[in-house]
Amino acid sequence: MTSPYRGIEHLGIVVGDLDDAAHTYGEVLGLTLTGREELPERGLAVQFVDTGGTRLELIAPTRADSEVSGFLGKRGEGLHHVCLRVDDLDATLAALERRGTRLIDRIPRPGAQGSRVAFIHPKGAHGVLIELVEKR
Amino acid sequence: MTSPYRGIEHLGIVVGDLDDAAHTYGEVLGLTLTGREELPERGLAVQFVDTGGTRLELIAPTRADSEVSGFLGKRGEGLHHVCLRVDDLDATLAALERRGTRLIDRIPRPGAQGSRVAFIHPKGAHGVLIELVEKR
Repeated sequence: MTSPYRGIEHLGIVVGDLDDAAHTYGEVLGLTLTGREELPERGLAVQFVDTGGTRLELIAPTRADSEVSGFLGKRGEGLHHVCLRVDDLDATLAALERRGTRLIDRIPRPGAQGSRVAFIHPKGAHGVLIELVEKR
Repeated sequence: MTSPYRGIEHLGIVVGDLDDAAHTYGEVLGLTLTGREELPERGLAVQFVDTGGTRLELIAPTRADSEVSGFLGKRGEGLHHVCLRVDDLDATLAALERRGTRLIDRIPRPGAQGSRVAFIHPKGAHGVLIELVEKR
């Protein structure tokens, strides 16, 4: 079986306060802060951090019913998801489904910068929320 | 400030049963299984998984008082830690300490294959357990 995976695209970390976390990761830990993005329709603000290779995404809620508020209330701050790059997302999802993987998205949805993304359910990956991304 | 970080070396995932998790990540998700290692003194067995770039480490306890048994009992299976590569671990730890970072290891300890490792406390990194590694 040839692997469809092309490495980790980013690692998502949920935090309570984005300015505070950006200060910690940038000024205290000494990592390199790159872009920041507001995603109002998802109730999120995101700070990208370069590790010298793969990037981190610090993700904070901007309203009480954001996409990460449930996670934050239940588990607290910390590692949230890992995003793996694939060449062909449709083919990868079809293969995963044939092998009985529990998916959150059976059909890709639009991601940042023209990419397409889909999530595998944590119950299908030993507790890990895996995002798959196909870049344009 | 020049960043001392050289990317993600691996991403640690705690699982209950290593054979079961290796089957899921290899046969079902279609990732490439590489080496397996027993670490009896830490009560762990580890399965390495290649993502086409950065690797994953599936970590399972081999006895009830293993290093990850507390995590597994409290949080369940899932993302556990991220390991960042640095060129000079002593200098990095000294700089982190000067900036008030809470460390688990102030002095590096031996890691796999002649490397040296140290952990930053999750309370110093918004809930994320960060391992630093200096390769030989």
